[in-house]
Order: sequence, then C-alpha cells, then structure tokens
Amino acid sequence: MLQPGATIGILGGGQLGRMIALAAARYGLKTHVYAPDDDSPAFDVATRHTLARYGDQAALSRFVADVDVVTYEFENVPAETASFLELRRPLRPGARALTITQDRLTEKSFVDGLGIATAPFHAVSSEASLEAALNALGRPAVLKTRRFGYDGKGQVLIGPNVEPRDALASIGRAPAILEGYVNFSREVSVVAARTLDGGFAAYDVCENSHRDHILDVTRVPAQLTDHAAAKALDAARRIAEALDYVGVLAVEMFVVGPDGDPDILVNEIAPRVHNSGHWSIEGAATSQFEQHVRAICGWPLGDPSRLGRIEMMNLIGDDVGRWHTVAAEPSAHLHLYGKGKARPGRKMGHVTRIFPR
Amino acid sequence: MLQPGATIGILGGGQLGRMIALAAARYGLKTHVYAPDDDSPAFDVATRHTLARYGDQAALSRFVADVDVVTYEFENVPAETASFLELRRPLRPGARALTITQDRLTEKSFVDGLGIATAPFHAVSSEASLEAALNALGRPAVLKTRRFGYDGKGQVLIGPNVEPRDALASIGRAPAILEGYVNFSREVSVVAARTLDGGFAAYDVCENSHRDHILDVTRVPAQLTDHAAAKALDAARRIAEALDYVGVLAVEMFVVGPDGDPDILVNEIAPRVHNSGHWSIEGAATSQFEQHVRAICGWPLGDPSRLGRIEMMNLIGDDVGRWHTVAAEPSAHLHLYGKGKARPGRKMGHVTRIFPR
Repeated sequence: MLQPGATIGILGGGQLGRMIALAAARYGLKTHVYAPDDDSPAFDVATRHTLARYGDQAALSRFVADVDVVTYEFENVPAETASFLELRRPLRPGARALTITQDRLTEKSFVDGLGIATAPFHAVSSEASLEAALNALGRPAVLKTRRFGYDGKGQVLIGPNVEPRDALASIGRAPAILEGYVNFSREVSVVAARTLDGGFAAYDVCENSHRDHILDVTRVPAQLTDHAAAKALDAARRIAEALDYVGVLAVEMFVVGPDGDPDILVNEIAPRVHNSGHWSIEGAATSQFEQHVRAICGWPLGDPSRLGRIEMMNLIGDDVGRWHTVAAEPSAHLHLYGKGKARPGRKMGHVTRIFPR
Repeated sequence: MLQPGATIGILGGGQLGRMIALAAARYGLKTHVYAPDDDSPAFDVATRHTLARYGDQAALSRFVADVDVVTYEFENVPAETASFLELRRPLRPGARALTITQDRLTEKSFVDGLGIATAPFHAVSSEASLEAALNALGRPAVLKTRRFGYDGKGQVLIGPNVEPRDALASIGRAPAILEGYVNFSREVSVVAARTLDGGFAAYDVCENSHRDHILDVTRVPAQLTDHAAAKALDAARRIAEALDYVGVLAVEMFVVGPDGDPDILVNEIAPRVHNSGHWSIEGAATSQFEQHVRAICGWPLGDPSRLGRIEMMNLIGDDVGRWHTVAAEPSAHLHLYGKGKARPGRKMGHVTRIFPR
C-alpha cells in the first residue's frame, strides 16, 4: 500500500494524465509525468515532469528511480518501454494488458477465448487473406489495422463497390483484421476498477454517441434492460479478471438485436481511464481518476455510485469557443484541459450535467 | 474576463493555495504560486512557482509579470507587497480587504459601522487602557492582539484572577483589543463569493466546532432558525458589498441568545477561501475554490447549492495517521494536503461525508 507522499509515475501527458495527476494530488500523492511533447497539458499539474521520448533509456532510468509505481494514460506504450519499467517498479496495469489490447487481433481472440461475444473477425495479412475473409463475412465489413487505431483512424468500411486492393492500400497495407459489419442499436461502455487483491467496482453502463468517430456524448445510465446491463458488467469483470488487471479499464461494446432482449458484443478494451468515464468526476461518489489512483496504489476502491442522471459532452476542436456559455450555466460542470490550439478533432474539454434521476 | 490559458498568481503555498490551483487547473487556467517556504504543498500542483520572501521586490516583479491576476490564500499579506502587486496587475480581492481584516480593531469598527452586531470591544494600547476597558466590559473578557492572530494564537482570556499586566505581557504587549466575553450557543460561518459586477452567491450557513482553538468539524446546514440564517447571510452580503469584494470570503459569527430567536454577532472576516467551506468540493454543485477562481477571473458564479447534509472533519496533526481507515470507507471523501511532518496543530487533510438530507 503506497503511503501519501509517494510518487506516481504517469506515462503520457494528455488530458487523461492530467486528470489522474489532479486526483492523485487530492490524496496527497505526488506525480511525475513522462511525455515526449513540450506542450503536454499534464505537465502543468504534475509535481515533476520529464520531457523525453519513450525510447530514451537514460530518461526512463531517471524517471523510474524517482517514482513508486508507474501507470499510463494510453495503450500504445511501446513494449520495450513497458518491460524496462516493469523490471524496476510496479507497472499498473501490467504489461500483459498492453500486449493484449495493442493488437486488435490478439484482443479479439482473447475476448473470444473467454466465451464473450465479439463481432466476427478474420486476420488479414494480404490481398488473398482479405478476399477469403470477405467471402466468409460478406459485405459490408470493416477493415482495421491491428495496431495504433483510435478515433476511427486506421479503418475503412468495405461496401459493395470497394476493391480489396484499394481498401488494403488505404490502411497502408498494415497487418489488419476484417470485422463483420455490426448493425448495432447502441454503443455502450463499462468503466470499472480492479485492485491487486481482486476487488472490483464498476460504474453504471454508459451509453456513447460519436461524431466523426470521436466520442461526442455519454449518457448514464445506458438505456438497456437490466439483463443486458448485467451481461455488460459481467463481461467487463471477466475481462479484468482474466487480465489480472490493476487499475481502471474501459470495455466498449455494441448492443445488437431487439431492444427488449438485446445482445452485447465486446468491441474494444482500453487499459486506462476512459473518456466515457469523465462524468464520474462530479456524477459519482468516487471519480474514475480517484478510483484508478486507489487501485494502482493498493488502496481499497471507493464507492462508484451514480448521483443522478448524467450527460457528458465533449468539447472538440472549435467547440471550446463555447466555454463561456457553459461557464454561465450555473450548474454545468465545465472542464478545460489547458491545451493550446483548438485543432479539428482535438479534445479540448468536456461538460458534465447532472439531472435528477 | 480572463480566458482559459491565462495564469492566476497565488500568494501563499499552503493547502488553500493548493486547492485554488487544483480548481484553476480544472478550468484550463495556469497557476503561479509564490511562497517563502521550500516545502509549500501548493508548489506540487502549480504550473510554475516562485520560492521567495514576500518582501523580495525583484522576485515579485518577475512573478507579477508572469501572471494575469493575483490572489492570495492568507490575510497577512504585507501591505507593501499588496500595493506593489496591485499597481501592476488586478489584485483580487483588493488591498482594502486586506487592510481592514488584518487588524481586529479596524475590522470590528468596520463591521460595527455597517450596523452589524459584534461583541463589544475596546482598543487597548497600555495597561491603563486595558484597565479602563475591563471596567467597561467586565470580566471575563478576551484580550486579542490587533494583528497576526489565528487559530487561538495571540489571545488570552482574562478571568477574575488575571492581572491586566500579566495578560498584556502574555500577548507580548502588542497593540490589542479587549472583547466582551460572548456566551455563544454556536459558532457559524458564511462562505460567499462576489463578482466584479456585484454578483453574489453564498453557501448555506456552516456550523463549526473547534478543538484547541482550531476548526475540528463543520456541519451544514447550521442548526439555526430560518430567520437567523437569513440574518447571517445578509450580514455576509453587506460586508462583501461594503468591501467592494471580489472572490470568496468567509465571515465567522457567534450565535447568542435563545435557540428560538437567536442573535448573530460577527466575529471575524477571512478575505479568502476558508476551512469551513472545504465541504463544498463534493458537497455543493460548485466548490468554494471554483467559485473563487470564477470570481477573480471575471467569470459568472456557479451554483452553490448543497447536495446533502454535510459533515467535514479536519485531519489535524497525528489525525492523519487514520488516513487508511478513511480511505477504506467507500463513500468518505478523503483529502490530504501533501504536507511532510504531522506536527501538532498542523492541518494535514480533511474528510467530507455527505448524508441524505
């Protein structure tokens, strides 16, 4: 159990690292943020920071010697970085969570191996294997790179008139998977935390809507039957257990089939705090960031109970220009991430509104 | 109206400065904390910090050039420091709030001048004036230094057997006031915010109990008749208006007389965020720290509504050793200030519990 005054090392300097650092500060913990970008917004609130590439072993050595535990805000931590750190300090969540979730094929196979439903998928490594996969899954289908995809990047929909060769070219001929097209009725996520000794606490299922492949609005609770919500929570718990996970994770899922008796397909695992959990800062008794800090420090988990009916809206790109309208709405909870330029698609902040149940 | 990305300068590096900085970060604002102590807990969460004495004009010059507005976490900012800064950047709250509240005689005369009741008081500058004051007010009475008193420091109760000369000696023969002894039934406080254009928002009246002259527990709402609560809120509003105040202030009051129709006496004005408002972090829609940041940045105020029945307990000195018990209580909100040694009387953290109304 880390004592107050201990230092949490955080890989990644974006808004997630920033909000982890803010939660750590509240518990009297120090933070050391490690990131390669000069204008990392997490630097502004961290006790100390290191500006260096993830492959810089000298910088990593100094960083790891200065901290008591290491965590990360993004799943694409290079494998060598993770193992270098894990040999020297506890890495939470562990390298196994990274290995599995960095590769869509490994990830889907892992989930499938737990007997949890996913969209049907086939590995694609060539035009021939793509054609075979298309024959098996039919069209439309979605071709996704195995690695480094996020916010809709690295994926392409293959409709009736798309040539397999062109589809492969459009994702740079990277190793890929082809997923059967899922005609989902809703997208939901489960944000949950697991402790070193197997303690588990999940937030209520979140319902997410996207704009241009980027999360736009999260509403909690998701409109789901109790049975379907229980199925979603159970899938997240089994995934966390199978990963021997420590910290907060998010599992993104599709809801398919009739509203009265839907099915849940797991789409993606994020081994970190997640945008669809930002509402918990004011909307739950314990925020996902506090929960993550508790878990990685070996503390018991807090209460994830929801305090009302919730709507969280991202401020993306120019949306942030509306900040003063939000600030003038007395009970809206405005969060701005301290980023410089409001580039299109850049997450600049979010707003949480809490309504009576 | 300061834009997100602007920098708030904060004088003082204790837990109040720390919590102001955390609130500012949430709104995408940067902070620069100025304090003379190397181990200032606010340094850990500030974007930048200056370690220098308050009289160091070179350091103050660099500090003020780096910020867009200056605020403070303590009322004993030296007058020269305040005027130096106020000439160069907006100082909020202004120097007038400091001048009046730094001196108990000026402060009580100011409140009295507004027609708001206080304990009876007399200026004391010598043994002769103390004897005259004792004759006028009777015994017991409380002798307090005019300046630099807090948490019971710089004051002495003059009971039947105390020699005036010894009482004066015990406060270092500093300029003082003698206050008539107030047989109060409760101690309460009003924490409120006022904006540049006169906007005003108060939290519900807080009821405070002290241990060894240090705030121990705050409960909200205070057990008061509606009439008495309205009187307390009105006094705070009139004080804020008369000071042309910008930011959060706290007014400490005594409740005297019968429970069914009590009177309110103003005891002290704190021109800053206040320990009795810490509960607002989770217990109100907008925290006192967010409210202070909004006010000094020229933003509209947030909603101060209370979310339940509240109990806030300080963790003082060795109390902090109980942190893990509090951490294991799932719905208790633990705050630790990141301070080093748990010296007796040192405020190390606090815990807020919210109950259904």
